[in-house]
Amino acid sequence: MPRVNPEPTERLLRILDADHRAALHLGGVPAAELAARFGTPCYVYDAAILRQRARLVARTLGVEVLFALKANPSLAVTAVLAGCGTGADVSSLGELLLARRAGVPPARIQFAGPGKTTEELTSAAEAGIAAIHVESAQELAALEQVGSRLGRRVSVGLRLRPGTLAGGAEPPRLRIGGADQKFGVSRSEAIDLARRVRESTNLQLVALHGYLGTQCFDARAWLGAADQLLDAADAVERAAGAELPMLNFGGGFAVGYFAGDGELDLTAVGAGLRERLSGRPQRRAVVELGRYLTAPAGVYLTRVRYTKHEDSRRVAILDGGMHHHAAAAGLGAVLRRPFPIVAAHSPRTTETVRHALCGPLCTPLDELAAEAELPELAPGDLLAVLGSGAYGMTFSHTMFSSHPTPAEVLVDGGQAFLIREPGCPTDAQRGQLLPAELAADAPRVDNPAP
Amino acid sequence: MPRVNPEPTERLLRILDADHRAALHLGGVPAAELAARFGTPCYVYDAAILRQRARLVARTLGVEVLFALKANPSLAVTAVLAGCGTGADVSSLGELLLARRAGVPPARIQFAGPGKTTEELTSAAEAGIAAIHVESAQELAALEQVGSRLGRRVSVGLRLRPGTLAGGAEPPRLRIGGADQKFGVSRSEAIDLARRVRESTNLQLVALHGYLGTQCFDARAWLGAADQLLDAADAVERAAGAELPMLNFGGGFAVGYFAGDGELDLTAVGAGLRERLSGRPQRRAVVELGRYLTAPAGVYLTRVRYTKHEDSRRVAILDGGMHHHAAAAGLGAVLRRPFPIVAAHSPRTTETVRHALCGPLCTPLDELAAEAELPELAPGDLLAVLGSGAYGMTFSHTMFSSHPTPAEVLVDGGQAFLIREPGCPTDAQRGQLLPAELAADAPRVDNPAP
Repeated sequence: MPRVNPEPTERLLRILDADHRAALHLGGVPAAELAARFGTPCYVYDAAILRQRARLVARTLGVEVLFALKANPSLAVTAVLAGCGTGADVSSLGELLLARRAGVPPARIQFAGPGKTTEELTSAAEAGIAAIHVESAQELAALEQVGSRLGRRVSVGLRLRPGTLAGGAEPPRLRIGGADQKFGVSRSEAIDLARRVRESTNLQLVALHGYLGTQCFDARAWLGAADQLLDAADAVERAAGAELPMLNFGGGFAVGYFAGDGELDLTAVGAGLRERLSGRPQRRAVVELGRYLTAPAGVYLTRVRYTKHEDSRRVAILDGGMHHHAAAAGLGAVLRRPFPIVAAHSPRTTETVRHALCGPLCTPLDELAAEAELPELAPGDLLAVLGSGAYGMTFSHTMFSSHPTPAEVLVDGGQAFLIREPGCPTDAQRGQLLPAELAADAPRVDNPAP
Repeated sequence: MPRVNPEPTERLLRILDADHRAALHLGGVPAAELAARFGTPCYVYDAAILRQRARLVARTLGVEVLFALKANPSLAVTAVLAGCGTGADVSSLGELLLARRAGVPPARIQFAGPGKTTEELTSAAEAGIAAIHVESAQELAALEQVGSRLGRRVSVGLRLRPGTLAGGAEPPRLRIGGADQKFGVSRSEAIDLARRVRESTNLQLVALHGYLGTQCFDARAWLGAADQLLDAADAVERAAGAELPMLNFGGGFAVGYFAGDGELDLTAVGAGLRERLSGRPQRRAVVELGRYLTAPAGVYLTRVRYTKHEDSRRVAILDGGMHHHAAAAGLGAVLRRPFPIVAAHSPRTTETVRHALCGPLCTPLDELAAEAELPELAPGDLLAVLGSGAYGMTFSHTMFSSHPTPAEVLVDGGQAFLIREPGCPTDAQRGQLLPAELAADAPRVDNPAP
C-alpha cells in the first residue's frame, strides 16, 4: 500500500492493525468488501479501536473519560464507547438526546457550550446530568431561573476561560479576537459566581471546568493548564467557601495527521495528572476527548470515478470529496496539508506516480491531495482516507451541491453494521416548501430566451 | 443602523432598499416581525431583489441567464428566478431534481461537474436537458454508453479548462494543484472530443462551456476569457467540422462583501459581450450565475443570547453562527474578513462600541466578527448579516454540534412565506441505526468510574 505522507500514515495503519503488504482490511474485513456492500463513498469505524482508545486513556490517566460527541455524533460510536464506561461531553440539546439514546447514563453526561438556550438548560436540568458548565454570569442567572421553575437543585460547573489556563499568555490554537472571551469566565468572576451559586437554593456547585485548546501535542503544556485549573479550584474553594467535588480538565489531546506531526506523550500526561491528583482522592477527575478517541478508528472510502493525464500530471476525480470530508480538503486549516491516503485495493504495481486527488464538486477547494504518491490510478480504484473517525462528515458542508450523504458503517468482531443510511438525491428538498403563489409563477412552457 | 464594514454595507442596504434611519425592513416587512414570527436564527430572501437581479443581467448582457443552484439550492428561490425566465445550472442529480420541481423546463437546464456518475448522466439524458457539459474523455465515453442504452441522441457540451481561458496564465482564484486540470479539457482535447461526438450516433454537440473562476471583479478579465472561449469555438468548428449552436460563458460575477471590495462593471461586461456576439446572432449565448443573483437578496437573522464585558471588550454570544453561515465566519477564505452586519432592531443609542460577535459552538472558529462597531448589544437584540443569499446554509457544516438548521423565509410583495421548516434537536439522529448488539453493550446502570 503506497501512500501519501508516510509518517502519520504508518502510525494510523499500525493503530488499524492493517497489513501493509496486502489490500487494506478494517476490523478484519477487506475494505473492498465493505465498499462493494455499502457503496462508496462511505465512512467505516472500527469498534475494537474505539474501545482500545477509551480504555487506554482511562487506564493511563486514572480518570473518568467523556466522549465529546461533537467529534462524531454517531449513535453507534457513542454506544460502543458507553459500553466500556465512557461518558458524554455534549454541547447541544441534539447531542444530549443522542447520548441518552446511545445509552449514556445522565450521571456520566456533562454539558458545555457558550450559547446554551433556555430549552437546552431546561432539558439538561430535567435529565439530571452530572454538570451543566456555565460560561457567563447571564447564563448562570438563566440557569437559576430554570432551577427555580423546575423546583430542583441543578448541578452547576463553572468554566474557566482558556486564557486563564494558559497563565495569561495567548493559548495555542486560539486566535486573537472574541475567541478567548467567548468561552467561560475569568478566575475572579468564577469566584463571584461560586458565591452566587452558594446563595442559590436552585443551584449546586459541582465542578470547575477548563479546556485549553484543540490538538495539544505537548504534555507539559497540557499539565500546565491542569495546574492552573487546580490552582483556580483551590482559590474558588477558599474564597467562596464552596467545595468542588469534580474537576473537568478538558481534553484537546492531539492526533497526528500530517508529516512532521509529533505524538502526544500520553504516559507523561497520565503520570503528571496522577501525581497532581494524589493529594485529593475525594475529587472526581474527568477528561473529555473527541478526536483522540475516534479519529484513528475511522476511514473514509472513496472510489476513483475518472482519471485524466494532462501534461505530466495525473488527476483522479473521486466520487467523494470535501462535502463529506471538509477537513481532508483542508477547510478550516490555516495551512492546507494532505490527510494520509492509501490505496485500499491490491495495487497492480508497486511503482508510484503523483496524482492530484479531486472531489466531484464544482469548486477548486474540493481537492483531497495535490500531490499524492500512489500507484497509477484507474476508474473504480478504491482509496482510504485515514484518521477520519473525528470531524469527518460532521465538520463538512454536506448540503453543498446537493449530493447524497455517505453511509456510515461500524465493523465489530469481523461483522459490519450499517449505522447510518446513505442519503438520496431528493434529500436536498427535505423540509422545503414551495408556496402555491410561487409555483404558479414558474413558466408552464418554455419561455423564449430573454 | 450603525454597522461594521461601511462600504459594502451601504451597497447591500441600497439593494435591499432598507431605510437607514429606522429599524431594518426586508421586502417591506420589519426584520423584527420576521424574527418573532419564524424564530431565530433564520435566513430571509427578498423575491423582488431576486427578480430584479435576474432581469438586470439578462437585459444588460442580452443573453440567457441560468441560476447556478449550488449557490442556494432553494426550491422557492429557484422558482422565483424561473418565473422571470431564468434557467438552471446544475451540478448534481439532487440539483437537477430540485430545478425540475421548481418549474425550470429541461430546455433551460444545463449540467456541469467533473465527477458525474452514471446515474446522473442517465437522469440528465432522460430529462432531455439543454446540455450535459462533459469534462473528460472518460466522461464522454460514459455518456456515449448512456445514450446508446437509452437509444437517444444526447446533447453534449464540452467544458474548457479554466487555464485555457486565461490564455495559459494561472487564472484568478484557482490554486496550484489539480484544481485547474480537474475541470474540463484542453483546447486540443476539445477538438478531439468534438470529432468523437460527430462520429457518434448517440451524441450531439450543442455547446462549448467555459468558466474562469469565482468572484471576478474585473470586466476586462472576464471578457478576455470570453474571447478565449469564442476563439476556441471557432477552432473547434474549423477542425472538427462541427457547429456549436450554443456558448456558455460561465459566470463568476463578483459580489462585494468586504471593505475595499470593488464592484463589477456589469455595463462594461454587457457592452463587451454584445459587441463580441453581434457577428454571430444564430448562436445561443448563456451565462450562469449563483452569487450575483442571490447574495444581495438574502440576510441571516440572529439574536444575541448572552453578552460579556471582560476587560475592555464586549462579547456577544449569538444564537446563530458558523454552523449555519460558515462563509460569514470566514471558513474557506484565505483571509478572514467580517461580513457586513447591522443591528436589525431600533438601536437604543447611536453611539457604537466594539463587539466580538461569536456563535454558540464550542470552537473559536465560530466568530462572525472580531471587532464589530455596533450600539451596545444586550440579550435579545437582533442582528442581520447582509449578503447572505448565496453560499449561506448550503456552504455550512450544518450537522456540526447537532444544532437544528434554521428556517428559511421568502418575502414577496409584503408577504412572508416559510420556505424551509426549521430543524429540530432529534434531526441529528436521522438515518442513524443502532445495531441491537451495540444497544445491549451500553450500560444499563451507572458503571463505577474507571
